[in-house]
Amino acid sequence: MTGFFITIEGPDGAGKSTQVRLLAEYLREKGLEVVVTREPGGTPLAEKIRNLVLDVSEEPVAPVTEVLLYAASRAQHVDQLIKPALQRGAVVISDRFVDSSIAYQGFGRRLGADLVWQVNRPAVGEIMPHLSIILDIEPGQGRRRLARRQQLQQTGPDRLEQEQLVFHHRVREGFLALAKEYPERIKLLSAEGSIDSIHRQIVSLVKEKINAKGMDRD
Amino acid sequence: MTGFFITIEGPDGAGKSTQVRLLAEYLREKGLEVVVTREPGGTPLAEKIRNLVLDVSEEPVAPVTEVLLYAASRAQHVDQLIKPALQRGAVVISDRFVDSSIAYQGFGRRLGADLVWQVNRPAVGEIMPHLSIILDIEPGQGRRRLARRQQLQQTGPDRLEQEQLVFHHRVREGFLALAKEYPERIKLLSAEGSIDSIHRQIVSLVKEKINAKGMDRD
Repeated sequence: MTGFFITIEGPDGAGKSTQVRLLAEYLREKGLEVVVTREPGGTPLAEKIRNLVLDVSEEPVAPVTEVLLYAASRAQHVDQLIKPALQRGAVVISDRFVDSSIAYQGFGRRLGADLVWQVNRPAVGEIMPHLSIILDIEPGQGRRRLARRQQLQQTGPDRLEQEQLVFHHRVREGFLALAKEYPERIKLLSAEGSIDSIHRQIVSLVKEKINAKGMDRD
Repeated sequence: MTGFFITIEGPDGAGKSTQVRLLAEYLREKGLEVVVTREPGGTPLAEKIRNLVLDVSEEPVAPVTEVLLYAASRAQHVDQLIKPALQRGAVVISDRFVDSSIAYQGFGRRLGADLVWQVNRPAVGEIMPHLSIILDIEPGQGRRRLARRQQLQQTGPDRLEQEQLVFHHRVREGFLALAKEYPERIKLLSAEGSIDSIHRQIVSLVKEKINAKGMDRD
């Protein structure tokens, strides 16, 4: 497999999608094929699964159902989009991937990281990110940013966004634990800097990893 | 938990739903609360997941996606319907449960029983059937029965039903392997007898198990 797989992780309101867009532009200017995607979603079927998970009008979604639906969506995303793109040598940038499941369901919903890995290992197979960047932000701060954006866009919070602040503190704890456990793969950046300074930090991490992997020489 | 959980397993065309109905009638006449359900499905959200799995118009469904979607549907079914019913002392009869995933995805799709259990253990938790009855039929025979029924009902085969006969031979192999591995829980009956004779065999197995469990004394 000759491609390069990058995931951008962190809570809503941390600026993930902006950074995904800026990084994609940067890498495209360097002449690379870049595939931008997001989770949950990424293929028509995966998006339908996403809608089931996030729909607030449904019956109560059991925490284990939630983790399995995210894993199902991820399995389809990997099989139909990420794996083929990596096989033809593209750079894939995904807004969220398996670390979000560990943080949100494993820590946020207290299912435990082991159970979430157990269900997700078959979903990702051998496709793990070469580099994962977690945009870290204090939950109260993240909530305020998100509320401002939703006011501007006149959209409301979905089911996960409605969770209490204490839930989001546990999610952050999960992301921090992941960064500590996988220091080679996962890099933690503060999301509180300027968009441009965060972008430059991300570019520097990506360049270092791509050079280390020797993508051009593959 | 004071209830009693029965699953009826086997391929389409084996007569599962007829036997579920007859058994439910029999147990209701005995004054028991009986909850009849089916998989994939059993709750509105689980039914929506079922529709995603069975829809023939979708993009190719990765085998791992399929096993995770069935497990998600099952987790919801257990949490919202089966567990509450058992807790209030009902008899739950489900047309298919976890053994179908082992047979269809583990054996039929060759994902292996281990992977399918790995994903399904969190979905079922401690809720395993007290008695599972597999209606066994030679795949060619089962196909012919099913085709006759669909001709009568003017419906067409769904995605799983369209699978080749060799797939259904592997599924049968899976059911037979399960019956051999869990002889206490799983009883194998030939589906080729008369409806009434199969019903009588099922009633006799159910009575024996319920008496052994001492449901009335719980």
